Order: sequence, then structure tokens, then C-alpha cells
Amino acid sequence: MNFADKLSEKILKTNSRVIVGLDPHLDKFPKGILEEHDILNKNIYENGESLERASDAVMHFNRIVIDVIYENACGVKLQSALYEALGIAGMEVMADTLRLASNYDLLTIVDGKRGDISSSMKGYLSAYFSESGNAPFECDAITVNPYMGRDVISVFNNALTSWGKGLFVLIRTSNPSASEIQNVSLESGEKFYEYIGKQLNTWGSDYIGQYGYSCIGSVVGLTAVEEAIKIREILRNAYLLLPGFGPQGGDLSIVKDMSDKNGLGFLIVSARWGLFENIGTDFKNSIKNNIKKLQLLINKFI
Amino acid sequence: MNFADKLSEKILKTNSRVIVGLDPHLDKFPKGILEEHDILNKNIYENGESLERASDAVMHFNRIVIDVIYENACGVKLQSALYEALGIAGMEVMADTLRLASNYDLLTIVDGKRGDISSSMKGYLSAYFSESGNAPFECDAITVNPYMGRDVISVFNNALTSWGKGLFVLIRTSNPSASEIQNVSLESGEKFYEYIGKQLNTWGSDYIGQYGYSCIGSVVGLTAVEEAIKIREILRNAYLLLPGFGPQGGDLSIVKDMSDKNGLGFLIVSARWGLFENIGTDFKNSIKNNIKKLQLLINKFI
Repeated sequence: MNFADKLSEKILKTNSRVIVGLDPHLDKFPKGILEEHDILNKNIYENGESLERASDAVMHFNRIVIDVIYENACGVKLQSALYEALGIAGMEVMADTLRLASNYDLLTIVDGKRGDISSSMKGYLSAYFSESGNAPFECDAITVNPYMGRDVISVFNNALTSWGKGLFVLIRTSNPSASEIQNVSLESGEKFYEYIGKQLNTWGSDYIGQYGYSCIGSVVGLTAVEEAIKIREILRNAYLLLPGFGPQGGDLSIVKDMSDKNGLGFLIVSARWGLFENIGTDFKNSIKNNIKKLQLLINKFI
Repeated sequence: MNFADKLSEKILKTNSRVIVGLDPHLDKFPKGILEEHDILNKNIYENGESLERASDAVMHFNRIVIDVIYENACGVKLQSALYEALGIAGMEVMADTLRLASNYDLLTIVDGKRGDISSSMKGYLSAYFSESGNAPFECDAITVNPYMGRDVISVFNNALTSWGKGLFVLIRTSNPSASEIQNVSLESGEKFYEYIGKQLNTWGSDYIGQYGYSCIGSVVGLTAVEEAIKIREILRNAYLLLPGFGPQGGDLSIVKDMSDKNGLGFLIVSARWGLFENIGTDFKNSIKNNIKKLQLLINKFI
């Protein structure tokens, strides 16, 4: 099934627009888990052995999170940088976490923001997507950086049309320095991010499913309200993946401008918020309640 | 030692400006190696076992290449996409190849074109760089994508000032669709890539070594001659890493505009050309001779 349709049906089935960010910030992990794996207050980057123990701790935490959030989230997003930081053992945990999340029927997104020439993008294609479901880091969608132009998406044609896979291309990111590049004014009078949005509208037009959305979605930071609203106008057919809620200051009221009349068309990422902030003594229950609370908060605005 | 100084001294010592791209395009590998590892004419992406055999073949090939090129090249560049494509075994080969190249005194560059928010860039920092030299994928420099602005380089301050590490930030890439993004005209009258060049000039200004070059270099495709010359004017203090020679059509005569009076300031990448093209029956000797020939061709123009 077309990725955008799969995503739409998952949203309707769960009534959730929450993507949980499984971003292993070990310094924010529950103390009990760090203690159990003997990495509390240790510099895990000192030697390979502690990277393995740290990776075990990440898998332990991810298992718990997936088990408590799967009813209130429609998918998970793994920040690949934080798995790469743990070396080979970390990459194994990334692969295992993707498989586990998929078994829980959660959609899986690898957030590596890849972007390269076609012959290299073929490498990323093989790493993340396959027809058989046996790619080393098989997932439903990846994030992509558009700096190198249309070549970054061209090798994914089969994956998008026949294998049910999706891409989320960066437009306007949530970080403080985003505007110094993405908000530059062009000769045409538009901002650079608007130009990228228009390119994406073209790139995605071949991959639109029955709910009216393309398998090529886009990443837009919740912190850039004005830009997000303009991007929504430009990109009517793209799923917008919205990070930046919580610590980065994103405001949920923007949801009313992102959602279509069926409550489709966007996803809110909960990463540090929900998993590492607002956590009581029972972290499992806190995480479960936080994600459920976020699900309901979002749904108020659709 | 400052990375740019280390690079300058390596160039002067070897009298070579060649960076050999260790990009495992298995479909172009010598038949003998594919046969020996039982992957000739097989779809290696079918199952995990063949990915392991393919990874063994890559390590086998990389060992041979490093051993025949180390006297005529100043470093190697590994395209991370093609290692990720081979899964966990491929990532192990990437780490092992980096260690081996470093033992041969070659500078090592991981070409992953990473770019993310600061908290994720910290992950990439831990994956590729350390003070002790024990990072999982320890190398001398990585390539970086500037789409998200200055946040993509800010976490590397210690690595650049104290650990002898370097970055190469994309400006004008060598791929066909590069111009649709990078050559867009800005309100200021300049092209987007010129604007990025000016940003990089500022970003790199804190990291200039005694040869006059910054630890923050830049990636500029050899296929974009006019742009490369403009970028050289804007970025007097940046090492330019120039891919695109050979199959992509890049022309070496541009070297005369890239080089300073000491023959410093640029690096030519030889990836598919030299390793997979112009190969006779004895592939080891062909590769050795190709890289030596390229070294001399470049030096004619300095």
C-alpha cells in the first residue's frame, strides 16, 4: 500500500498523530536502567565495552517505551546520530528497535537527514528499504536533506510506488540557526524555504495516494509558526512531520492550520518531551500518560 | 596539530593532492574478489549472510587498495552510504578500513554529509571524533551539509581546536541536480552557493592554522568550473575537496585556479576513476599506476 495511505489509515485507526522520538539521550535516561547496565555516572565513550553496555541500556529502554506507547502513537522516529554514536552495538540496537516497533504495528522513521549524489543514495536505499522487508535497517520512511536537489529522491521511485515506503524532506527545521539559511530572500521575492516547498510539491506529485497525500512528506519545525503556515499553503499534498514540541518551544495550537478536515496531513514528534521530561517516580507510567496526554491535546485542535 | 596544518604537511611530504574514494560499488569490483567471497552474480541484498560475505570482499579490496596507493595519495574518503548498505558487517568494515588507512598514515575522511540540530550533531561528534582516538568510526574529518545553518558545526569546537579534526562543508556539489538548489539567485544579487561560501568563510575563521587554512574546508564539485573559481575567491582560507573527476566529467585544468603558490589549498577525489575504470588484467598494478598518474597530472597544474 502507498505509504501516505498506510499512514492515513494508521492515524484514523489509532486516532493519534503522535510520532515518538526514540532518541537515546543516555544522560537523560532513568537512573535505574543506567544502574542495571553499569553505566551510571560513567563516560561511556571511553571504551568499546561500555558502548555495548550502553547499547543494551538503550534497547532495554526502547522496549519499555514501545510497549507503553503503542496504543497512543502512530509511529516512532529514531535519530540515527545517537545510535551511530554507540558504534556497531548501537547500530544493532537501531535495527532491532525498528523490527520491534514494526512488530507492534508502529510506523518507523529513521531520521538521518541523508542527501547525496544518486549513486550514494542507492546505498541508503539498500540500507533502509527493500521489497522483501529484509534491508539491514528496514523502516517505513527516512528523512532526507534537499540541498543537492532532485537527485536525492530519484533512486527511491520503486520504493515509493511499489514497496510502500516514504520520505520526509527537510524544508524549515526547528533549530535556532535554521533561518540563516532557510529564510534567505530570493530574487523572485520568496524565501528560500518557500522555494524548497515548491520544489517538493513537484517532486511529490507523482506519488499521491487515495487520501490525497504524497509519499514524499516534509519536515517543518513547530518552532517556526509563520513558515509552517506558508508551507502548508504551498504543500497541500504533503504530510508535514513537525518536530520541536516541548524543550524547543513549539506550540500545539498550530495544529488547527496543519490538519485537513479529516484530521490528516501532519504528525507531531514527541522526543525529549514525554520521554525525559515530566517524568515521575514510575517512569513507565509517566511516559504512557505523557504520550496519551499529547495525543488528546493535539486532537483538541483538529 | 591543527587539521589543516596536518593536511598541508601531508601534501608537502607526499607531493600528492589525491584523496582516494573507497566507495564499495560491488558491481564494479574485480571478478576474482567477488568469486573468492562467493558473491559473483548474486543479489547480495537477499539475506544477511551474503551481506557478510560482501563486507568481507569490501575489506579484502580496501586492504589491497590502501596498500598500493598509500605512497601516491594523501588520504582516503569513505562514502558511508555504501557501507551502511551492507548493514552491521558493512559498518564494521568502515571502522576497520579507517583504522587500517590511519595505520598507513593516510588522512581519513568519512563522507556522510551529516547535518542536524546540535543535540544530534553531538551524536555524530561521538561517532567520528574523540580526543583519545577511540571513537567507533574514528577519522580525521567528515563532510557536513549546511542546510540547517551554523548549528551543524557548533558542537565540533573542541574537535577542531584541540583534537586535530576537520570538517568539509558542502557548497556546490558535483551532481546533475545541484544547480536547481545551489544556483538559485538571491535578492542580494548573489547565487545561493556564494552566500553559503560567505557563511563558511565566517564559520571557518576561528580555526585557521599556520599554513593559512581553516580546519573547516568545503566540498565543491569539479564539474562546476565557474562556481569553483568564484568559491575559491570567496574562500581563500578553506581547503576545497573536489569530487567529480572521471565519470562525472570534471576537468583537472581547474587545479591552476584552486592551488596557492605552494601547491596547497585543494584535494582531488578519485573514486570510480582509478579504482574501477582504466583497469587492466592486473587490477592491483592498474590501481597503483592510475593513482600515480593522477598525482602527476594534478601536479602539472600547480
